Amino acid sequence: MTTSLPPRDLTSQVASRTQPGEHMTPDEFQRYGHMLVDWIADYYRNVEKYPVLSQVQPGEIRAQLPPAPPQTGEPFEAMLADVDRVIMPGITHWQSPNFFAFFPANTSGPSILGELLSAGLGVQGMLWATSPACTELETHVMDWVVKMMGLPEHFLSTSTGGGVIQESASSASLCAVLAARERATQYAGNETGATGRLTAYVSTQAHSSLEKAVKIAGIGRERLRLVGVDKTFAMRPGALAARIAEDRAAGFVPCFVAATVGTTSSTAVDPLPEIGRICREQGLWLHVDGAMGGSAAICPEFRFMFEGLELADSYCFNPHKWMFTNFDCDCFFVADRSALIRTLSILPEYLRNQATESGAVIDYRDWQVSLGRRFRSLKLWFVIRHYGVEGLQTLIRKHVTLARDFTRWVEEDPDFELAASTTFSLVCFRHKGGDAVNERMLAQLNQSGALFLSHTKLDGKYTLRMSIGQTHTEQRHVAQAWELIRAAARG
Amino acid sequence: MTTSLPPRDLTSQVASRTQPGEHMTPDEFQRYGHMLVDWIADYYRNVEKYPVLSQVQPGEIRAQLPPAPPQTGEPFEAMLADVDRVIMPGITHWQSPNFFAFFPANTSGPSILGELLSAGLGVQGMLWATSPACTELETHVMDWVVKMMGLPEHFLSTSTGGGVIQESASSASLCAVLAARERATQYAGNETGATGRLTAYVSTQAHSSLEKAVKIAGIGRERLRLVGVDKTFAMRPGALAARIAEDRAAGFVPCFVAATVGTTSSTAVDPLPEIGRICREQGLWLHVDGAMGGSAAICPEFRFMFEGLELADSYCFNPHKWMFTNFDCDCFFVADRSALIRTLSILPEYLRNQATESGAVIDYRDWQVSLGRRFRSLKLWFVIRHYGVEGLQTLIRKHVTLARDFTRWVEEDPDFELAASTTFSLVCFRHKGGDAVNERMLAQLNQSGALFLSHTKLDGKYTLRMSIGQTHTEQRHVAQAWELIRAAARG
Repeated sequence: MTTSLPPRDLTSQVASRTQPGEHMTPDEFQRYGHMLVDWIADYYRNVEKYPVLSQVQPGEIRAQLPPAPPQTGEPFEAMLADVDRVIMPGITHWQSPNFFAFFPANTSGPSILGELLSAGLGVQGMLWATSPACTELETHVMDWVVKMMGLPEHFLSTSTGGGVIQESASSASLCAVLAARERATQYAGNETGATGRLTAYVSTQAHSSLEKAVKIAGIGRERLRLVGVDKTFAMRPGALAARIAEDRAAGFVPCFVAATVGTTSSTAVDPLPEIGRICREQGLWLHVDGAMGGSAAICPEFRFMFEGLELADSYCFNPHKWMFTNFDCDCFFVADRSALIRTLSILPEYLRNQATESGAVIDYRDWQVSLGRRFRSLKLWFVIRHYGVEGLQTLIRKHVTLARDFTRWVEEDPDFELAASTTFSLVCFRHKGGDAVNERMLAQLNQSGALFLSHTKLDGKYTLRMSIGQTHTEQRHVAQAWELIRAAARG
Repeated sequence: MTTSLPPRDLTSQVASRTQPGEHMTPDEFQRYGHMLVDWIADYYRNVEKYPVLSQVQPGEIRAQLPPAPPQTGEPFEAMLADVDRVIMPGITHWQSPNFFAFFPANTSGPSILGELLSAGLGVQGMLWATSPACTELETHVMDWVVKMMGLPEHFLSTSTGGGVIQESASSASLCAVLAARERATQYAGNETGATGRLTAYVSTQAHSSLEKAVKIAGIGRERLRLVGVDKTFAMRPGALAARIAEDRAAGFVPCFVAATVGTTSSTAVDPLPEIGRICREQGLWLHVDGAMGGSAAICPEFRFMFEGLELADSYCFNPHKWMFTNFDCDCFFVADRSALIRTLSILPEYLRNQATESGAVIDYRDWQVSLGRRFRSLKLWFVIRHYGVEGLQTLIRKHVTLARDFTRWVEEDPDFELAASTTFSLVCFRHKGGDAVNERMLAQLNQSGALFLSHTKLDGKYTLRMSIGQTHTEQRHVAQAWELIRAAARG
């Protein structure tokens, strides 16, 4: 930390812990908890003073850690001192308002407190019975999300579907692929060999997690067809239909399409109405990935991307990207929960219980890969209540406005060009000097520590990504970034 | 909460939040953070006063929540008041010292603080570069674990293998199955149709997550062979060898065996030397699941279970069960990291970076299903340092001693019998009156709220499981449980 903590008398602490296996008492927890809360508050007061991208070399952090674990207990002050000394130089500051790389993984005070409460209660919500509140709050907040985002009503738990919090969009995509695989093979497992002929479809711009999911599911990554995109980087429905027909003719069994509303490279929006119609006609599972873009739907003016979403079998977006909720929090919705549950449910004797057998409850272990689960809905509940729907709308609009300002600056500068249109809060742009210039600029900017940008390739060209969405990013941060980018361009 | 918080003037708080989208300031975060830390400390002071198993009926929690999310922001005090009023009655208290169900999901002060710090820093460690400390601390602490648990040296990151923190043993098992599948099919994907002939093997006592993993991987749950067990509920190596031979004769391709050191029903230990020898001879991937039992290896006297572990390709155990680290924290080790990485690595342009391409760093996204990941090693680091190796040994031995005491009480009571021998801290027992009596006793005990037990079936008989391992369980809690069980038996 740049601000130093008060001096600590470590000796008195070491002396107080004389018995091996002594727990931290509630009094000690209060003392250290307050200390850590103060440390975190200071971190946020000073976060702009750190280089955004960690400047350490590989191995530099490890070299400062003792080779063996301690034989006897250490005081909490020693751990916190090592966080300052050893850990902090190795942090890339995702919570800096100058973080413009990838997509954000933003957070906020209420989210951190929700995570703290979840850790404090320490419940494991695999079954309804193992903490009814963990399951019911999650179901309820997922229903809130359907309402506040204008999602199709069949994603409500009170309808045929429902929502569940997954670790990430990767986990959600995997569950969608698995449900699609099982539905396409009539839940017959692998006996018939049908799995060996399945095919899946995404655009060339889809996230890599789809390829990973299709591989994990045993469909095989070579059976994932990459469908071409139009000049806005959105999937071409005609190309999708043609590839499905071609595969059917070759004896394959098409089963799954993932469309994206806000692709990773450029936040392009695939045309759901046409893709949805093809999936319905052909009996394919349609998953819609709104990992980043989905948060924008809190504002009605961005719900254009949901036209056709009523044709989707599943949908996900990540409050842990752009809705002030710390990783991990992906909201995954299905239109037909029975397909998901039938895919993922296994009930051994040691988990049997009255509530489950009554059929009156949800057991979320059947909605995900893992058996165990944390009480993750607390943080989302806290965030929604802290900001309210209007507060979230205000913040999303603010980021979008900043991105539009930045877009205009790029357009007005003769040395730069846009690489894609700005749909939400990501601006894809490049210096007109070519790949080498942009690559050099990126390295120089990130090494400066003043900001962190990342890149992609669009139309085969090296492209800079200015991704705006960190909780505390203000106009001045975006303006400074643009100044620094222009300075880097000048060499 | 049984202790009431000081009265709050909510009006002044509501009035202070006038602008939509206003963030919680660092000062506010400090105030609410202290408030929540105090709340958690009080929770642990009073945890024994709650009924262990929540007594609510399905739907009771949801019915108290407003049907729609708030339009405008609410003060933190309102959320915390609702935690008391709405959430707490729906909590099953995993952190009560009277929690004896399933396996524990225990935690501790240093773990909660580690989780808080992780949420506060809010880093996403998908790549080394996205926070070098997140990756390097994890690698380092995993190496500590190898040393403090006496694990085979090839699980060290400085050798051919390495460790990674997974969400759960389910996730670890899935990664092991996937790596086995890929190795057995020469990483050729699904083109050859080889996946359609793979088979996998576990004992009848293996955890349900293995069946789920084999199903997810597209091998098919019907291709998971359940191998019989001996009278200690340990896998019979002869039966395993016979089934593998039978499958080979039928044209199948055996690829994966999971052995368990500490099964879920009864903590039986599968014989690794014989199973490992068979796997080596036959070229099968051997995964060892030590989800619960593994923590005992902090004490040298329990490392008997690791005889033969040097023959395993992968191993996992859960500090989030019995090592005072809150869910999620599964330690997963592989002997050959290249097999895992080759299975799970996909590198799109937008994730390319200098550090990754240098080959000098670990990118943990290639060691797991999800792309994103939290800074989970902080909590494990804090726990190991708070207790020290000797402290952890003391606590494990204490729980084992309590289980042995309980075992003796069962043996000495003419109305009860042991259903399995006590290997670690789980006692499997039953009343001699038969299934109906035990089932009634369980329901009555759990409804009393005084303790929470669960059950399984062993040799086809309904069996009660007294699982001792909650952080704060002392002799008096176990003694009281036994008194209550005997009272329940009397009706």
